Amino acid sequence: MNSEFFVDWSTQALARVEAALQVWVPMQAPAGLGEAMRYGVLDGGKRLRALLVQAAAEAAAATDTSAGRDAALRAACAVELIHAYSLVHDDMPCMDNDVLRRGKPTVHIKFGEAQAMLAGDAMQALAFEVLTPDQGVCAPTQARLCRLLARAAGQAGMAGGQAIDLASVGVTLDEAALRDMHHRKTGALLCASVQMGAACADIDETGPTWQAFTDYGEAVGLAFQVVDDILDATQASSTLGKTAGKDADANKPTYVSLLGLDRARHEAQSLLAQAHAALSRSGLPAQRTRALASLAECIVHRDY
Amino acid sequence: MNSEFFVDWSTQALARVEAALQVWVPMQAPAGLGEAMRYGVLDGGKRLRALLVQAAAEAAAATDTSAGRDAALRAACAVELIHAYSLVHDDMPCMDNDVLRRGKPTVHIKFGEAQAMLAGDAMQALAFEVLTPDQGVCAPTQARLCRLLARAAGQAGMAGGQAIDLASVGVTLDEAALRDMHHRKTGALLCASVQMGAACADIDETGPTWQAFTDYGEAVGLAFQVVDDILDATQASSTLGKTAGKDADANKPTYVSLLGLDRARHEAQSLLAQAHAALSRSGLPAQRTRALASLAECIVHRDY
Repeated sequence: MNSEFFVDWSTQALARVEAALQVWVPMQAPAGLGEAMRYGVLDGGKRLRALLVQAAAEAAAATDTSAGRDAALRAACAVELIHAYSLVHDDMPCMDNDVLRRGKPTVHIKFGEAQAMLAGDAMQALAFEVLTPDQGVCAPTQARLCRLLARAAGQAGMAGGQAIDLASVGVTLDEAALRDMHHRKTGALLCASVQMGAACADIDETGPTWQAFTDYGEAVGLAFQVVDDILDATQASSTLGKTAGKDADANKPTYVSLLGLDRARHEAQSLLAQAHAALSRSGLPAQRTRALASLAECIVHRDY
Repeated sequence: MNSEFFVDWSTQALARVEAALQVWVPMQAPAGLGEAMRYGVLDGGKRLRALLVQAAAEAAAATDTSAGRDAALRAACAVELIHAYSLVHDDMPCMDNDVLRRGKPTVHIKFGEAQAMLAGDAMQALAFEVLTPDQGVCAPTQARLCRLLARAAGQAGMAGGQAIDLASVGVTLDEAALRDMHHRKTGALLCASVQMGAACADIDETGPTWQAFTDYGEAVGLAFQVVDDILDATQASSTLGKTAGKDADANKPTYVSLLGLDRARHEAQSLLAQAHAALSRSGLPAQRTRALASLAECIVHRDY
């Protein structure tokens, strides 16, 4: 999976995203807000969502034009801003009460709860601001990217999944209910990342190519969570850069608690196969979908 | 100011907005999230921002077409969603720690802090979702509305103003700094409401009509806050439907603490005159700008 191609590709894609976030997340936001926002989003995490956007944009040939590249870079930063804001809020005392994130103090520990809440709020707004520049990206693409992102972030997506998660402590969820929760909580934004990349190339939403991107996005979205639960049950906190075993300790259902470790691992492999099958069905040349294929491998075979 | 025209006009405009919010803020959002969102935004407040959108849309003749009316109604609901989410978060213990809002328990008192934070987050996403329907509003208008709203809600606007507000407890601000804080904290969204109404009619942002809308929006935005400070210093909590005198008690600077009551009242009148002058400069027939003129009067002459 870590082919020379993918190492080069992801290094370049990450560098573009980090450089763009450095510019777009403003240092000069007032009264320490910019510092808190930057702390929450810069230099952090695997940037999986940004890589999915970029890989899907390349697969769909969006990156063949300067406007498409600009749109894909903006979409990549926007999904990272949404993801980062959700972590900032999720870590707060009234939610998961986490003090450690990626090995560093969480935003509310470093800047206080009020500033953390505001920074998260401002990061969500900034995501939509980044998607709607005065020029460079055509208006229909801007509107479509905002639509996809808003739906994935809101009550039917990420925020709704978090509400189910909140309500699920100590509750017995069956596999369908657990799947629904994760489909919203993490799957929606991961799938939207793929769709937003495809939207940068103006792929028609009623056609088979769009459906293939969506199927791929849903498979990797769910696989991500299954693997997260496996890692949470099997790895040390020091490897993960966050507190391991928290969900089990909080009596929250996970794929591992529900299926057992073996079946959870089997499920992850099955979802990986579904992701590859979707890419085959896309009708796009394998050359173009290489980064998406590698990302699916990375998601399933990662160890942190 | 409460002319027969304005009473009829605002009654109809409010009814449209309430009916649309009833539909667009989803009952069926999972795990109680929809209930918390609806509690936070339905049947509440003066809907000043929604009325400004609708009045500006009428002034700009957006409401002469069905697409323009749809856009204006969506914009009106979107600004109310942003305003309502900001109140939900602002009331939380880590911010203002308010238990009462519009005479009712605040969202976190009723639904818990975690659900209140999520509801606010989901309301912000919903604002952008409402602005980006699959059809009905043309894509350039969707993109433009998202751009105006995101800028007004984020670090350069509302969230930035709140960060300054947070940092201003016990600090001496001069009039320019106080004005800057309110320009962002409440002024940006009020002004954006006017601009979004005008954007529904595709008014060119480089022309004098747009500038007149903007000047009007800035004047009423600032006037709103000056009058808020006057009411906070002079009215009972029961009249306001919220705890009076909180800012003064918290040692936060206000227009009244800085200018005194007389000069604050004079400032409000001066801003009202500026708002009317901007409407005169707009080049729009007075018949069309009647609702905007009445709203400016309401903002300055309200007693709660």
